[in-house]
Amino acid sequence: MEMKQAALDYHALPKPGKISIEITKPAETAMDLSLAYSPGVAEPVRAIAENPEDAYRYTCKGNLVAVISNGSAILGLGNLGALASKPVMEGKALLFKRFAGVDSIDIEVESESPQAFIDTVKRIACTFGGINLEDIKAPECFEIERRLIEACDIPVFHDDQHGTAIVTAAAMLNALEIAGKNIEEARLVCLGAGSAAIACVKLLISCGFKAENILMLDSKGVIHSERNDLNQYKATFAVETSCRTLDDAIDGADAFLGVSGPDLLSPKQLEKMAINPIVFACANPDPEIRPELAREVRPDVIMATGRSDYPNQVNNVLGFPFIFRGALDVRASRINEEMKIAAVNAIRELAKESVPDEVVNAYGGGELSFGPGYIIPKPMDVRLLGRVSSAVAQAAVDSGVARAGYPAHYPLNSVSDI
Amino acid sequence: MEMKQAALDYHALPKPGKISIEITKPAETAMDLSLAYSPGVAEPVRAIAENPEDAYRYTCKGNLVAVISNGSAILGLGNLGALASKPVMEGKALLFKRFAGVDSIDIEVESESPQAFIDTVKRIACTFGGINLEDIKAPECFEIERRLIEACDIPVFHDDQHGTAIVTAAAMLNALEIAGKNIEEARLVCLGAGSAAIACVKLLISCGFKAENILMLDSKGVIHSERNDLNQYKATFAVETSCRTLDDAIDGADAFLGVSGPDLLSPKQLEKMAINPIVFACANPDPEIRPELAREVRPDVIMATGRSDYPNQVNNVLGFPFIFRGALDVRASRINEEMKIAAVNAIRELAKESVPDEVVNAYGGGELSFGPGYIIPKPMDVRLLGRVSSAVAQAAVDSGVARAGYPAHYPLNSVSDI
Repeated sequence: MEMKQAALDYHALPKPGKISIEITKPAETAMDLSLAYSPGVAEPVRAIAENPEDAYRYTCKGNLVAVISNGSAILGLGNLGALASKPVMEGKALLFKRFAGVDSIDIEVESESPQAFIDTVKRIACTFGGINLEDIKAPECFEIERRLIEACDIPVFHDDQHGTAIVTAAAMLNALEIAGKNIEEARLVCLGAGSAAIACVKLLISCGFKAENILMLDSKGVIHSERNDLNQYKATFAVETSCRTLDDAIDGADAFLGVSGPDLLSPKQLEKMAINPIVFACANPDPEIRPELAREVRPDVIMATGRSDYPNQVNNVLGFPFIFRGALDVRASRINEEMKIAAVNAIRELAKESVPDEVVNAYGGGELSFGPGYIIPKPMDVRLLGRVSSAVAQAAVDSGVARAGYPAHYPLNSVSDI
Repeated sequence: MEMKQAALDYHALPKPGKISIEITKPAETAMDLSLAYSPGVAEPVRAIAENPEDAYRYTCKGNLVAVISNGSAILGLGNLGALASKPVMEGKALLFKRFAGVDSIDIEVESESPQAFIDTVKRIACTFGGINLEDIKAPECFEIERRLIEACDIPVFHDDQHGTAIVTAAAMLNALEIAGKNIEEARLVCLGAGSAAIACVKLLISCGFKAENILMLDSKGVIHSERNDLNQYKATFAVETSCRTLDDAIDGADAFLGVSGPDLLSPKQLEKMAINPIVFACANPDPEIRPELAREVRPDVIMATGRSDYPNQVNNVLGFPFIFRGALDVRASRINEEMKIAAVNAIRELAKESVPDEVVNAYGGGELSFGPGYIIPKPMDVRLLGRVSSAVAQAAVDSGVARAGYPAHYPLNSVSDI
């Protein structure tokens, strides 16, 4: 109750909301205004009309990301409508600015259909340098993202899918390393088959997991090749197996990825997992199994959650600000698989380095060295900006999606411009 | 050429563009972030889902105005497309913030039709507390504005029409007073029949001009009742007259309002006007007649232009920031005729007061007292904010478009919150 009031007060006082607009150029004298507006503004207008690329020179476009939602899947709260999603989208904008100096504004879209949503975003896309989609329900989110990526010449990124997947994959790869497990043989159970789960599993396969070693479960149980009730997105992950329930699937599994709900992994199920089990209980705010309980049952567990009050927080903020920073810095036309994997590797490598005192202190001291209790960096780790952004930018250049003439901006902007 | 480069440099250096996003709440500690984002953000989400009005309490909506264009009529440059309009829209956002503390973000809409534009704006409208339409060509702008006003529960205001009209009317009423002319008998010639001209004439009629005393001219000459080539918007202003050309119309006219192009009012035509002629030569950057020339021909002229380098600049910045400030402060659902007229009166009355030294000094000294050389306040007059915003807010309350429970916010916010 106290937390509830604190959260409401934070949003309401002393003024409503969390972001505002700031003027970045002199606007004091009549001369200033004649440059900023009429008649001076006609010059950049003419320049952009002649060469659209000049929008990156004379306007905010290149550092401006829209955080766009229709409110159809807000946090874990469901479809509460576009307006109710506004605090979340403003929060995301706050994180973009705070962690990576990306200017970001929320746009809530009241749309009667995926088509209407797509049309709307397409039409306003030229305003922005990138689009972060957020809290859009599955399966519509897949088509929406795919078609917007096709239609736009700027990065379009559904963070609930790919941001989650990138941070999860970074943590999972490190967990495997610490547990001494070979990724090509490791058996993974993924509880949940929503957009985040699907994106995680896809990226884990890109990173080396074998599809045949992964069992995904939706509310009806294991997704197997004999089911005929699967949409096209789930069907991709159907495997031939005799497993039907989580009980069946978890037996001897090396890793569990929960993107489902509270307390859905029982102590008995955890007991049946292989040695050094990896448990990512990412349901928020209440994980699939509580870390205290898990450790009681299996002292050899390597555990991560979505919560900040336990070690190993799998938190999207480790990814999206820096992924967009890197993409914007080299004017990438999209965020491709190479860039995502570069982000995964940059995040996981950072966890292996010794942690500066300032970061340790920000978390009240304690041990932060690579091991079961520290498999991914902390959100407040100031090194993330330079490392992840640079890696993403370089991957964009190497994979040919950076715009000619812009690599020179990289990597200086990544570190200095906040 | 120097001005051109200065304008481009202003927009490009040290960073592209003129606005950015600013964080308004603490975002340093892990606790801050847990209030701003997950899990704390769920509280305002739930509150807004239950009571949409709470968006004004917990988000930026109430102070956020979208400046929206399709780029179909950018300044005097024509249809250069949505992207090319971005510097103008960002400039408007800068002025909103600079003069009235209104947070404002530009949205450029690439729309294939007025319908597509309307659909797009309607769908994103819940993000904002108000919508400022800009640089949309006539006659589409009329339908677009009308239908968006109907569809939205927040103020929608096409500044090129109504902002221009409000400032023009304020100046015109004062000019009439100084010239000793009776508004009910004054004969007005309006050269130009675009959206700004039409809005000006409409508002001047609301303010007391007689429709039968106004002759409006488009590119084909006087708009009279025997023409059959008029769209519905122009047809409203057709009068029975034998006048066919500007030469005919200007003979004995008391006032000339130019919203057309350079040098379209000749010295000979000016000579034929009535005593103490009022000439508003508002074409930008080159007026219908140069003030030096006008004064040479008619030393008794009362002259205004759109330029900052002559006295009596008719500039929208005297209106829109404060009109929105007032409307937002009382949560007005629209900007109605009463609010526009309140703005007209507040602007014109301010011109009759003695000008503080700081304002005089901002313009390099000289005389700023009510008379032919000073018929409207200067854009840098800091008193505009309190006067115009308060008048608009009060008119909203009096005319019943302010939301219950919000009048209490007025007028304190008007003056203090920048």
